[in-house]
Amino acid sequence: MILVNGALASEVSARDRGLAYGDGVFRTFAAHAGRPLHWQRQYEKLAHDCAVLSLRVPGAPVLEGEVRVACGARSRCTVKIIVTRGPCVRGYAYGRDGDPTRIVIADEAPGYPEAHAEVGVKARLCALRLAHQPALAGVKHLNRLENVMARAEWDDPDIAEGLLCDSGGRVIGGTMTNVFIVTGGSLATPALDQCGVSGVTRDRVIEAAGRLGITCRIAAIPWREVSEAGEVFLVNSLAGVWPVRELESRPREPGPVTRRVQRALKEEDDAQAL
Amino acid sequence: MILVNGALASEVSARDRGLAYGDGVFRTFAAHAGRPLHWQRQYEKLAHDCAVLSLRVPGAPVLEGEVRVACGARSRCTVKIIVTRGPCVRGYAYGRDGDPTRIVIADEAPGYPEAHAEVGVKARLCALRLAHQPALAGVKHLNRLENVMARAEWDDPDIAEGLLCDSGGRVIGGTMTNVFIVTGGSLATPALDQCGVSGVTRDRVIEAAGRLGITCRIAAIPWREVSEAGEVFLVNSLAGVWPVRELESRPREPGPVTRRVQRALKEEDDAQAL
Repeated sequence: MILVNGALASEVSARDRGLAYGDGVFRTFAAHAGRPLHWQRQYEKLAHDCAVLSLRVPGAPVLEGEVRVACGARSRCTVKIIVTRGPCVRGYAYGRDGDPTRIVIADEAPGYPEAHAEVGVKARLCALRLAHQPALAGVKHLNRLENVMARAEWDDPDIAEGLLCDSGGRVIGGTMTNVFIVTGGSLATPALDQCGVSGVTRDRVIEAAGRLGITCRIAAIPWREVSEAGEVFLVNSLAGVWPVRELESRPREPGPVTRRVQRALKEEDDAQAL
Repeated sequence: MILVNGALASEVSARDRGLAYGDGVFRTFAAHAGRPLHWQRQYEKLAHDCAVLSLRVPGAPVLEGEVRVACGARSRCTVKIIVTRGPCVRGYAYGRDGDPTRIVIADEAPGYPEAHAEVGVKARLCALRLAHQPALAGVKHLNRLENVMARAEWDDPDIAEGLLCDSGGRVIGGTMTNVFIVTGGSLATPALDQCGVSGVTRDRVIEAAGRLGITCRIAAIPWREVSEAGEVFLVNSLAGVWPVRELESRPREPGPVTRRVQRALKEEDDAQAL
């Protein structure tokens, strides 16, 4: 089910700036019985990303209510919220007082195989390099052609994710995930000040690591460091934590730090889903 | 008037990948009595840009017919064609056999003041730097947040355009125009192999220069070279040629090379519009 500006709808204006320019932001997350998981975090990210684009963020209660309606009676949904700058007048300039368009889409849960979390996934390295744009780095905006092009590099269904480097050869993340590595018992995850998307689950892993007494470094991470790391795992709000069990055809084991983080996040999710 | 996939409509699917990811391309041009100006060039660019995104380009006669219908009885229109990868299934991956969405929007002519072409325009230098993404450089795709952010840097209605540099300080173009400079009687325009949009009018200027016996260099052009150039002008399909008469508050004169190019393009336009 889809709500556009609160009304049941399946379409948006052909003049919407979200379509014309990708002038908007989005979030994707799970909802249980119509309640968004980790809603406060998701909303804070949405508000932050809207602020970067000077876009008025819809109120949290409005969006929460619309998520509930869009989910209906379904116990588990995948929800996507899109906020755009609304219809175009003409050209790139925009008025400061325009009404944003809000789109809430609730679908079936994604149904990733349980083995992805339990046994781990195969991942590859994409050839496409992410461009450095500090003005938009970290933001989950609607300009996602790099992700689309990277994802089109493979169609082997056994490969669950592709990792992306920036133009300097540093790993930034997956096409739809953030990435963590474990070396010497410590975590590290790429800095996202030049490109990439800073996801809610990335924040949760960093905080969980703190509680678990595991140090977590946020830094520039060259591909070689990822390739040689003892453990690698991928995270997002729908997938949770996926250990990488094969990277560029080299097998590896889901390790103990990955499992501790995975357990910590799972417990949080279960507490939320009660 | 708007046609979506050939049918009179004002909306597109809220699941369209053009909205979700900016997964598509567009063209904007003038039409006289329903006939697109420089249509062959526009269509070739559209086909090229679709090919970069592995997107099936709609047939030229189909689009031409839809432009005619969308323009209706109006003698002058601004037409925008958007081609997207169509509705999402889920995620960044896409099927190879999906139907693209085509959107044809015909509006009133833009009504730029005639003085823009005759007397020239004021322009500024934007603070935002364009990111290097060679995989998408030159393509008029729907990921245009950089243009939106750059255009939001000023609201003085006397400033018609903002110039953009890349992260290396080289001028790439305006938010909605390509740029040319004149030094020592020769033209130069930025190379667009790392970022920027390669417009139809840019190609026309380069070719017109050849016919007029004016050399035209396509090269990396640092800001300083633009700032100190004897003549600077901006081009796009709707504006034609705009001499820059003030750049970053420094006045300058529309010069003879600009006028020759402007005249050559105007003659082509007039011949097309007969």
